[in-house]
Amino acid sequence: MREIGLEQLLALSIGATLLGTGGGGDPYIGRLMAEAAIRRLGPIRLIRVDELPEEGLVIPAAMMGAPTVMVEKIPNGSEVRKAVEQLERVLGQKAIAIMTIEAGGINSMIPLAVAAELDLPILDADSMGRAFPELQMTSFHVNGISATPMVVVDEKGNSLLLNTTDNNWAEKLSRTATVVMGGASIIALYPMTTEQARRASIPGTMSAALELGTLLRDHTLPTAERLSRLLATMHGQVLFHGKVVDVVRRSTDAFVRGTATFAGMGDDDGRTMRLEFQNENLVAMINGEPVVTVPDLICVLDRETLIPITTETLSYGQRTIAVTMPCADVWHTPKGIETVGPRYFGYDFDYKFVAPEATA
Amino acid sequence: MREIGLEQLLALSIGATLLGTGGGGDPYIGRLMAEAAIRRLGPIRLIRVDELPEEGLVIPAAMMGAPTVMVEKIPNGSEVRKAVEQLERVLGQKAIAIMTIEAGGINSMIPLAVAAELDLPILDADSMGRAFPELQMTSFHVNGISATPMVVVDEKGNSLLLNTTDNNWAEKLSRTATVVMGGASIIALYPMTTEQARRASIPGTMSAALELGTLLRDHTLPTAERLSRLLATMHGQVLFHGKVVDVVRRSTDAFVRGTATFAGMGDDDGRTMRLEFQNENLVAMINGEPVVTVPDLICVLDRETLIPITTETLSYGQRTIAVTMPCADVWHTPKGIETVGPRYFGYDFDYKFVAPEATA
Repeated sequence: MREIGLEQLLALSIGATLLGTGGGGDPYIGRLMAEAAIRRLGPIRLIRVDELPEEGLVIPAAMMGAPTVMVEKIPNGSEVRKAVEQLERVLGQKAIAIMTIEAGGINSMIPLAVAAELDLPILDADSMGRAFPELQMTSFHVNGISATPMVVVDEKGNSLLLNTTDNNWAEKLSRTATVVMGGASIIALYPMTTEQARRASIPGTMSAALELGTLLRDHTLPTAERLSRLLATMHGQVLFHGKVVDVVRRSTDAFVRGTATFAGMGDDDGRTMRLEFQNENLVAMINGEPVVTVPDLICVLDRETLIPITTETLSYGQRTIAVTMPCADVWHTPKGIETVGPRYFGYDFDYKFVAPEATA
Repeated sequence: MREIGLEQLLALSIGATLLGTGGGGDPYIGRLMAEAAIRRLGPIRLIRVDELPEEGLVIPAAMMGAPTVMVEKIPNGSEVRKAVEQLERVLGQKAIAIMTIEAGGINSMIPLAVAAELDLPILDADSMGRAFPELQMTSFHVNGISATPMVVVDEKGNSLLLNTTDNNWAEKLSRTATVVMGGASIIALYPMTTEQARRASIPGTMSAALELGTLLRDHTLPTAERLSRLLATMHGQVLFHGKVVDVVRRSTDAFVRGTATFAGMGDDDGRTMRLEFQNENLVAMINGEPVVTVPDLICVLDRETLIPITTETLSYGQRTIAVTMPCADVWHTPKGIETVGPRYFGYDFDYKFVAPEATA
């Protein structure tokens, strides 16, 4: 068991922004919520899946909706716990731990606030190893776990309990409800047993975000050294050095979709990178060729500070380094690729698995 | 108590088409469902609100969606009872009677099938005295009764339990869920006590539909005599004699919207009536002037057979008589007019209450 106090929270939020691969919602709002809860209720226990009691109910919680709307609709502590409590009532059982469905973005933080409010530990695991835009894009789904019964609540006091025949229906029905609710909601879903949580989650992702964030914040190291250590930790590599020359962004049916264009600098002088995103970065094309695609991670960093830049904050003139890191193994399975590969997002090419290079 | 057997069912379905004021969904599909249930399980008991036991739970049931889609998605007996049974489980109580929210259209029939399946009586009452396109357009709503907890189910096995802060939210959330479900769903909503059912419903509307349908089917009488008796029973009057010369109809966000134009015949030669509808007939304009508007009833009948013509079956060349009848008193209250008056439907004029003329 580790503890997440105020210091860890800040590092975790930076690491989560990196794993958000441009999306997932800026963790800032979530951090404020978790911070308020920690100040009031003390540090949150972060436990490994093998530290869970053998029997018990684990409930993942999250915020759903367009990140740009989420930051306008800050939920308070009592709202975030309502969804979990309603699911507990439906199941006639109290949760023993809270889990995050995505370690990237705001959803690394929302479950912390829920855990603090309910005095429960948070699992050091998630179901994406990054952020993804839809709720069936989880290792739980790939492992046959149902997203329902699922609860959707809004800040006005409306609530929905869903039972669906499959997880794509859960996504469709909760997504439209979220749009009607104003573009953002709090959800509790994929209730599961200890055995399921151990078998179907991606372990260690919260502590990985914490480690990455701690490294990014360590300004005692020169930028080149921090970048080098970051790539080693991520098993990642540099994708492109470039300046943002164009950004097109639009909010549609509860997603933010768009593209950003980067003019190459330094080693990449004369080349162009085009980044396409749906909340998260989906595909990086260099000179028109797809070079990295979902489910692998594409992260854009500020060239000087190495602070991750989200798709919402991308703007003309930023000097950046784009880096990539391999996705969790679960996404390499046939059902994984079917769920989050480029074809699911409407592209007419396949995912190419590239074994991570050793970087120094 | 009366009984609804196969003979009554046919008359009721014709009366319900009339009260559907052009919409409400063709009762034909609902009649087939109720017919199958009656053949299998025997006649359904129709009881007055004063025949209800003093204590108990009354559950209204209905089909939601665009009528044109409903007829493509015929629910089976077990589906229609699922919504009611799920609501019973949520409330921890069995229903003592089923009610219809609208006596007009298919929703006069769906609750009959539910009542037969659950071996419960159906109340001789509804909450509209006609058909309306949205679920907060009820006497229950005007009387402060909550539409939620409300259950929405589809034929695939998906279900939604809604709890909302007001009935407009219940409408919005269930409507979009219904669209996602393919355009039609079965709903159970406005669960209420005997006292609430007595206070907040419009009594006698099912037997009124039965009486009107029986009269319309009585071909022993000449057409003029049947029309005259119909108007006397309805406290109604003839609005326009005309031939359909244009119909524009489109399915949008789970409603069918459109307009029909009638060229005057006989007494109305040289005049034009334009009928605007959203599932149901909303406004009749003669020579550009609104003459009758919601919530009063506007019904188009075949000139020879007096069979009611729905907005879905309106077509070029039909020779028609349009008739009007006054709405239930509840709609004359300020909250009633706010809920279903012309301004709610986007018109910039007020409802004018016209006391019914005596007709012979």
